[in-house]
Amino acid sequence: MAGRRTRITLASIAAEAGVSLPTVSKVVNGRADVAPQTRARVEELLLQYNYVRPGRRSARRAGLIDLIFNQLGSPWAIQILRGVEDFFADQRRGVVVSAVRHGSARPTSWTSSLASHDTDGVILVTSELTTEQWTQLHKQSIPLVVIDPANLPAPEVPSVGATNWAGGMAATEHLLELGHRRIGIISGPEDWLCSRARVDGYRFALDRAGVAVGPEYIRYGDFQHEGGFRCGQELLSLPDPPTAIFAGSGQQALGVYEAARQRGLRIPQDLSVIGFDDLPVARWLSPPLTTVRQPLTAMGRTAAEMLLNLINGVRLRTQRMELSTELIVRESTAPPPASGGPGQ
Amino acid sequence: MAGRRTRITLASIAAEAGVSLPTVSKVVNGRADVAPQTRARVEELLLQYNYVRPGRRSARRAGLIDLIFNQLGSPWAIQILRGVEDFFADQRRGVVVSAVRHGSARPTSWTSSLASHDTDGVILVTSELTTEQWTQLHKQSIPLVVIDPANLPAPEVPSVGATNWAGGMAATEHLLELGHRRIGIISGPEDWLCSRARVDGYRFALDRAGVAVGPEYIRYGDFQHEGGFRCGQELLSLPDPPTAIFAGSGQQALGVYEAARQRGLRIPQDLSVIGFDDLPVARWLSPPLTTVRQPLTAMGRTAAEMLLNLINGVRLRTQRMELSTELIVRESTAPPPASGGPGQ
Repeated sequence: MAGRRTRITLASIAAEAGVSLPTVSKVVNGRADVAPQTRARVEELLLQYNYVRPGRRSARRAGLIDLIFNQLGSPWAIQILRGVEDFFADQRRGVVVSAVRHGSARPTSWTSSLASHDTDGVILVTSELTTEQWTQLHKQSIPLVVIDPANLPAPEVPSVGATNWAGGMAATEHLLELGHRRIGIISGPEDWLCSRARVDGYRFALDRAGVAVGPEYIRYGDFQHEGGFRCGQELLSLPDPPTAIFAGSGQQALGVYEAARQRGLRIPQDLSVIGFDDLPVARWLSPPLTTVRQPLTAMGRTAAEMLLNLINGVRLRTQRMELSTELIVRESTAPPPASGGPGQ
Repeated sequence: MAGRRTRITLASIAAEAGVSLPTVSKVVNGRADVAPQTRARVEELLLQYNYVRPGRRSARRAGLIDLIFNQLGSPWAIQILRGVEDFFADQRRGVVVSAVRHGSARPTSWTSSLASHDTDGVILVTSELTTEQWTQLHKQSIPLVVIDPANLPAPEVPSVGATNWAGGMAATEHLLELGHRRIGIISGPEDWLCSRARVDGYRFALDRAGVAVGPEYIRYGDFQHEGGFRCGQELLSLPDPPTAIFAGSGQQALGVYEAARQRGLRIPQDLSVIGFDDLPVARWLSPPLTTVRQPLTAMGRTAAEMLLNLINGVRLRTQRMELSTELIVRESTAPPPASGGPGQ
């Protein structure tokens, strides 16, 4: 710890790696003309010494990164925080957590919150990033990684997400295999990328199976309980109600559970329900929820690793990483009722 | 923002308050011989200017506080974080969030995580505070507030909690009023203060109503789902099973829901269940959970206010604050079944 703030020089890294100084420079500046093995060795040393490029906003390492959430209301947030915190604890960096403030008297620009302290980098979670905010960070040379961007980020913004399309497909295929043909879906906001990708995965699975469903089986809402409850009620009120509902989050699935309970429908005997995310509560529900797992903690950790590379001036292998979703089958899905569906 | 780091002097505060410099000094040093109205006025100005006592560990304001959790796994944590983050956002201070590391290769002393950055103060949540840790912070003049201490803190450690005893009493009285006489309780770890206080509140309510229950109706576990499930099964397997169960957390209540479902018991018709905490998920359960609300966000905010006072050298009105719990009646509690209980 004593030498924590001692600046390591490129020359000493060159010496330790047994390469020339210009070669180390090339690695730092992301140039292509370096042998892969040499690059790997130099990058390892840069990481090991937490090399900070000179000319950064702050001459010294702040020892902190900022993790900024769209909102702190959801248990979703704590899963991501776990991954980020765990990674940076090993790196001896603190994680400053904050929430974007919408429509409050306080400054709405989340970048203003960074002014209270130096920061080595920023991880932004499911927020809309304006061009202005991005420019502001860029000008100050503050590295940025976005987790699950709500809107399409500029291609130069590194981001981490989950394979939402594949997740939507896997959920739908599971229900098709059980024999369901009338499958409803409740997704998040229509203008969010992750919502659209899940619905497209659902559509693809149905098309491939030659199952046609009307547009009335597709609902966009929010990812909250209330939206799941309302959309669940709407779907179950259709003349030909679905025998299975794919909800876009665990909270939405809880809303569908309640809509089913209020109609006297049993899960899974009368109605199959599948959720998304797989927050801890999913396995504690009655019945335990079949769900598409989104690896939130791993996504946080991956974003943290990408950010550390950016801080150290190490070139990213890719600007966009998608971690795989996984279908977890529990007790909320079963073959459709013999009569062909609830209410019939 | 420009003058953020300008040091305010006691002389200028004295001038603005219209009092002498020695009077302001007395307030800062917590001396008793100041008129209450004068003290209030001076304290208000100290707060307003974020007065920092000279001679603190760091000559400059770090602009950061540390919020340290026992573990980051629970949605509980996010509620407290919301309160703390919201308060310090207004104060232009960042909140560094971390978890104590137990049994890992990394240093187990949580105070070591503070070494990576300067901090103005620490809020510690439901952790056991060792004398060594307390001494370490004290030596460095880092103010500390503890939320819901697991063990009895030294009287000089400021702490915030909820009225657990009153909450245990309120839950039990609600069940007694509905007509229940065999009431089980599942609490947290037996050596935690909050667990003991809730069980004592339960016992008091039963005693006052003249209802005797055997010790087999009282279970200590952890606050997790698994403990709730296991203890729920045990209680429901008693020769005279309870007609109502008071669970120590929402997660435990979910475990009881599942134990009931597996026995074919309906809630609340066959078994009443009441939880604690009132995390958002409580109102989304099927049926929505009757619960004792613990004001977690307000507890976070209160701890933050206490910490800011300590940072500013303002004397605390009290070293221990307990915020009131509140009974929220939803649909998981009802009169006991006419037959006298499940399984009969």
